[in-house]
Amino acid sequence: MNLPLPSLINRLRAGDARALARAISTVENRLPGWSDLLKALFPYTGKARVIGMTGPPGAGKSTLVDQLAKHYRKQNQTVGIIAVDPTSPYTGGAILGDRIRMQDHYSDPGIYIRSMATRGSLGGLSRATADAATVLDASGRDLVMIETVGVGQDEVDIVRLADVTVVILVPGMGDDVQTIKAGIMEIADIFVINKSEREGAERVEREIRALQSLAARKSDDHWTPPIVKTVASQGVGTEELAEAIAAYETYLKKDNLAFRKTVENWQERLVEMLRDAMLENARAKLGDGSLERYAAEIAEHKRDPYSLVEEIVRGAEHVDSMEDL
Amino acid sequence: MNLPLPSLINRLRAGDARALARAISTVENRLPGWSDLLKALFPYTGKARVIGMTGPPGAGKSTLVDQLAKHYRKQNQTVGIIAVDPTSPYTGGAILGDRIRMQDHYSDPGIYIRSMATRGSLGGLSRATADAATVLDASGRDLVMIETVGVGQDEVDIVRLADVTVVILVPGMGDDVQTIKAGIMEIADIFVINKSEREGAERVEREIRALQSLAARKSDDHWTPPIVKTVASQGVGTEELAEAIAAYETYLKKDNLAFRKTVENWQERLVEMLRDAMLENARAKLGDGSLERYAAEIAEHKRDPYSLVEEIVRGAEHVDSMEDL
Repeated sequence: MNLPLPSLINRLRAGDARALARAISTVENRLPGWSDLLKALFPYTGKARVIGMTGPPGAGKSTLVDQLAKHYRKQNQTVGIIAVDPTSPYTGGAILGDRIRMQDHYSDPGIYIRSMATRGSLGGLSRATADAATVLDASGRDLVMIETVGVGQDEVDIVRLADVTVVILVPGMGDDVQTIKAGIMEIADIFVINKSEREGAERVEREIRALQSLAARKSDDHWTPPIVKTVASQGVGTEELAEAIAAYETYLKKDNLAFRKTVENWQERLVEMLRDAMLENARAKLGDGSLERYAAEIAEHKRDPYSLVEEIVRGAEHVDSMEDL
Repeated sequence: MNLPLPSLINRLRAGDARALARAISTVENRLPGWSDLLKALFPYTGKARVIGMTGPPGAGKSTLVDQLAKHYRKQNQTVGIIAVDPTSPYTGGAILGDRIRMQDHYSDPGIYIRSMATRGSLGGLSRATADAATVLDASGRDLVMIETVGVGQDEVDIVRLADVTVVILVPGMGDDVQTIKAGIMEIADIFVINKSEREGAERVEREIRALQSLAARKSDDHWTPPIVKTVASQGVGTEELAEAIAAYETYLKKDNLAFRKTVENWQERLVEMLRDAMLENARAKLGDGSLERYAAEIAEHKRDPYSLVEEIVRGAEHVDSMEDL
């Protein structure tokens, strides 16, 4: 399928799943035309509700996302799911098993699932996820769900894209996981205790409450993240979670909070996009050969890397005033 | 302690722990003089052995690092430990408990421990860890150990700094952790199965062997990562691990592999440093105000972000040839 841009966009907007897959691949892999595609799609964006779901490994994220997707489908809403997989920096592929499991599960064209893998070392996952969400939004999906393992900075960056962030915890995950929880506590708009039939669910709830009393949300934010108990494998609590999400969305609409959140997100994303673009530029200018030569000189202690980087950046200093834009 | 650069460096080189702490803080937080400090320290680097230790939460990394540090101290080697903590993007502090636990544990000045926290969103953790390792190396520590939770891309970037990467697994961590393992399998020079007295240790070993037969190390690399079984809480297997590390270091010395690895690492680091420096530059030029204004215009759909970034980068295009450097 090698469509010219206008017909790709038409098909995408008409709900064609192959056009959707093609468009996401184009932006994910920076195939020719990716930039024109995003520019052309941008006017259609901003309509989808974006829900981020994150939690430690083993928390049952996929199952919960699955249940939630079914719930929204009953309300006749179309759903796009981006499942972000932690995977090898060398092979760069999404976990095949996961992809198969999920595609196997859905024969409903109203649910589109896309796995995203870590690729390269340059923060590409966050960017690829953001761009895929943009495509899904422009394609007219009512809901975009982003599912990630909530452990590192990457994942925090990713869930920042969402209008609503759901943090999923489970009873009895040990001390180190408590540590991880601290990292994602403050980004939660809603907490889920999944597998809540297990021993220790009350303890997790108490811990969340204790951490909530310590962790300050932004001063203009008067939302106290609710705690929803689920047993996703049995569909228990899905409706309550959907209600909590809706309640938060209603809250966001007050005082223009949703807009302010969007502006904040775009500030972050702009800086990231700028970083990626400038880096690409720098790499192109350096060329593979000279990068290797510089690295060898540094390894031999013939050159110090800090001065080198300063020199290169100074060389790029002749920049027009930004006010000209 | 507000020392001029030469006396800070003298004290640091003489083994003064306060000067060491001061120097790391300076580079970590980009305090005035950080760049001159790194430039001045660079000639003293390249002597320390750098060992990266990574694994999923709950694998017992800290305990194992602890045991290994004691082992090296018995051989009269000085040790620097950088413990990378996953923590909040907002508070930015290292986990206090962990820091206290470790400092409490060591009264030996031959062991220096530094916790590193995730700060900001711009890949700063990898950079901060690299710079701290540079300072520890220049200070004359024989060994630098970097301890991270091995789950995301950040952690992969961090362990890339190391000459030797040890991946720590434990029996019975469930299916999602198996997924994570796939992400760090290929960076392991040595595997440790910690808590190996537990049921399932053999299964983990079989899984590693199975994955090893699939995962290709680089073609010029004929090392098969050994599997060392430990019970770190009882000191079991520490000596075997130290032997495996030494064996890998011996292997690296053959065929100039260590040097080639260093050159490769510097290629990665140079690109990262260049990215950070150019981004700082771009941010400074944009100024906080205009970033917010652009973000608002994008949120209102008055401007598309992709064209904006292209315009800014084009504005920075008047770059001298890199060959002039």
